Amino acid sequence: MFARIDHIGIAVTDLDAALVLYERDYEMTLVHRETVTEQGVEAVLLDVGENHVELLAPLGDDTPVGKFLAKKGPGIHHVAYQTTDIVAELERLAAAGIQLIDQTPRIGIRGSSVAFVHPKSTGGVLTEIVQPAAGH
Amino acid sequence: MFARIDHIGIAVTDLDAALVLYERDYEMTLVHRETVTEQGVEAVLLDVGENHVELLAPLGDDTPVGKFLAKKGPGIHHVAYQTTDIVAELERLAAAGIQLIDQTPRIGIRGSSVAFVHPKSTGGVLTEIVQPAAGH
Repeated sequence: MFARIDHIGIAVTDLDAALVLYERDYEMTLVHRETVTEQGVEAVLLDVGENHVELLAPLGDDTPVGKFLAKKGPGIHHVAYQTTDIVAELERLAAAGIQLIDQTPRIGIRGSSVAFVHPKSTGGVLTEIVQPAAGH
Repeated sequence: MFARIDHIGIAVTDLDAALVLYERDYEMTLVHRETVTEQGVEAVLLDVGENHVELLAPLGDDTPVGKFLAKKGPGIHHVAYQTTDIVAELERLAAAGIQLIDQTPRIGIRGSSVAFVHPKSTGGVLTEIVQPAAGH
């Protein structure tokens, strides 16, 4: 069971240009900025109440977000649901026959534990499960 | 300023098939089902903490969601941010030069007041502003 929508991930070509909309116009507070080399992105987190917007700019064309932008253009990339026990959640989903991209959690932005569910099992929705690091 | 992510809207071809994933496997509670003829959809709301997932099935091919499915296939259709004063929010966004699809609010699902922001102004993200009806 998910506690809330943790964030929506949005693919952008230019982080600083996107921040004009999200920080200045939408008045969301930027709380974190991180280059996640393993995932090929520079990412920014903004607060929206207890939820977040995660802006994702690719580090190169040959990255997952780079390929997404080339194929679909900028826009919503994924949704992430928050849980307090990601290991139990992944076991439950796998037992229900849902195809996981990550069988076990890996480290995501801001020290969180994350895993992706395959869009084949979710009606085309790239879906992330997130257990935030303690204190977030 | 937005209070939270109100919901993500997900375009599906078959509502009942999608509910197997969202109700049974994700264990989200279905709280509302409504045919919104004016928008050409049958829609379902599920709770995820204080946020929602909105599943949208088109009433025909020649509707906005029908055209979305034909062009992009099933997947995330839009994100909605929640506000307590949609009129003030729309005035603020318009003054910032953001292009609105709806200049004034209209009635959305479950008696809410809603307005859409044009993806041209939001980096390709179809964005909805929502003021829930009293009691929701």
